Parts: sequence; structure tokens; C-alpha cells
Amino acid sequence: MNKQRVLVDMDEVIADPMGAMIGWYNGKYNAAIDFELALGGSWIRIFPEEHREMILERLLSPGFFRHLPVMKNSVDVLREINKRYELYIVSAAMEFPNSLKDKLEWLLENFPFLTWRQLILCGDKGPVQGDFMIDDHVKNLQHFNGKKYLFTSAHNLDITGYDRLNNWEEVADVFLNDNTTTVK
Amino acid sequence: MNKQRVLVDMDEVIADPMGAMIGWYNGKYNAAIDFELALGGSWIRIFPEEHREMILERLLSPGFFRHLPVMKNSVDVLREINKRYELYIVSAAMEFPNSLKDKLEWLLENFPFLTWRQLILCGDKGPVQGDFMIDDHVKNLQHFNGKKYLFTSAHNLDITGYDRLNNWEEVADVFLNDNTTTVK
Repeated sequence: MNKQRVLVDMDEVIADPMGAMIGWYNGKYNAAIDFELALGGSWIRIFPEEHREMILERLLSPGFFRHLPVMKNSVDVLREINKRYELYIVSAAMEFPNSLKDKLEWLLENFPFLTWRQLILCGDKGPVQGDFMIDDHVKNLQHFNGKKYLFTSAHNLDITGYDRLNNWEEVADVFLNDNTTTVK
Repeated sequence: MNKQRVLVDMDEVIADPMGAMIGWYNGKYNAAIDFELALGGSWIRIFPEEHREMILERLLSPGFFRHLPVMKNSVDVLREINKRYELYIVSAAMEFPNSLKDKLEWLLENFPFLTWRQLILCGDKGPVQGDFMIDDHVKNLQHFNGKKYLFTSAHNLDITGYDRLNNWEEVADVFLNDNTTTVK
């Protein structure tokens, strides 16, 4: 029997660029920018307007995506998912040309049980199909033909109409429960 | 009506890394390595064994994929295909981390009517689906659910069992004939 294919997003799902940027900004400016401000759009809006160009420049710089924090419990849960499913990490990264190699190296360092064969970097996720998709953006989920899960992030708290996974413990409950493949 | 989705491979289909490498090698060593030797496997085999490590190093270097020749007529034909279909360029490039940004920049320079949204860089093309796929490798075509076309290259001349496109004039005949979408 073929394994079911699970597509997992990178930023805000297994990697934390928003947290990394906020931490860096608050340190540099002795500021107190909060995740909660991200609701309802691009999280770049949470920074003062006069600093947004600098934030974007930092996002576009080589190295930014190379040293991001890993989302809590994602390593342990994906290690198990990788045994039971055909797992791909899919990132809409093409808008950030310097992130491409950084994302590959970050993934192989932090998730050493994955290989380069399991990473897909794209502009638009429409053609990437499978049985399950976990993503924090509706724009990535909406054209997916399999079962969609919205991974909760500060910017999507107001979205309705999607089944949510709020953290990696909940991902484990859904995907690593022994009845998963028969129940779905 | 939604446009049909066409997936087009990069190396040996719109870009010519094999030709570029052979040209460079023949110049450097005053050699006469020929495309015809590539039949039946990786084209790296066409170089003398003692030089294969150097060839692989060159493939892995930043810049090699940035300045490749464009396959004859591919620009003109893809410009038209891009108007009539949902077009993606899909390259199994992840084995070559330094090629990722190079491939994006090469594509946008040589095919300026395409955008970063239309490039997909992956390790394995299995999850990337559409209506048509043009590729020079059976390993990429075999898991595709749509109509498959083997693009002829020196290394695949012995493959049977696939509809072939031998050059970009033939791609135009198949995809830009006015009856295409009704005939398929």
C-alpha cells in the first residue's frame, strides 16, 4: 500500500521567521512589538512604517532564513510522521531568492532525518498535490485537493472555515493516532 | 474555463548544462567529447573517469547554472504557451544547492515573460501535478498523472514507450496548434 502524502509548510509552521524578526527588532530598538499585532495580514505590518523597508531588506538578505528557531515539538513529530507517511516540506520561497539555499541547509540541519528529495521550493503551491496539507496561509490551502489544515499563527486567528492545528501536539494527535489512516 | 497546466523541465529541455559542460571541457583539454556518448545514463559518464570529480565540482559551484545556453526556439514557443496555458517550470535541482538562486535568475533573465511564481525547484517531482509534463527523464515522468512527453536528449535516445518531443518546433506543433485543447 502506498503511503499517504503529507505536505508541510515551512515558515510559521516548522520555522519561526516572524518570531526571529520580532526578537531582533525589539532587541535593536528596545521595543515591545507583539505577535498579536499581526492579525489579518502580512506580519511586516506589525513594525512601524518607517522601518518596514529595513525589515524587508533583512528578509531578502542571505542568511536570515539560515538560522531561524524551530517551532516547538515539530522535530519530534515530523520524525514520526516521516516514518508513516510520504512527507514533503513545501515552501513558497521564490520571492526571496537568497532564502532558497538557506532553507535547504536549515532543513537538513534541524531535521536530519529528511533529505533534499523532500523539499519543494516554489512561488505558488497550486501544482503541488498530496493527501494532506498543513499551512498557515489560506492562499496556499485553497487550491489543494486533499485534506487541508490551517496551522494557527498570529496572522490567521480571524480565519474561519478551516480545520485548525494549533500546535505540533495537535498535529501528532491527528497524524500519529493509530487510527489515522483508517479514519480519514 | 480554467487553463490547462503545463509543466516544463529546465535542464536539457530549456537550458543546456550538458552542452555548456562539454564545450567548456573540450576547450580546456583540447578534447572532442561528444554528446552521443551520453546514451543510457548520467551524462557525467561521457567524461574520462579521472575528470568526473572535477565535473561534479563544477556542477555544484555557484554560477554554473546562471549562464547556460538557452535551448533553440524554447523562448519563442514558451512565450506563446504562457499565453494559452498555466505554465510552470519545474526543476529537480535540490541536489545542487548553489544552483537554486542561479536557476531563478537565469529563468527570469532569459524568459522575461515568466515570473518567480512560475518556478518550482524540488528534489523529487512526484507531488507536482498538472495536465501535461515535458521532461527528458523517465524518473520524472513516471509518477505524473497527466499526459507525459519525453523531450529528446542524447541520454534518452534508447528509451521507448513514451511520446516524444524532439525539439521546440515539435512542442509548438503539439501545444500551439489551434485544435490542441479540444483534441487532447
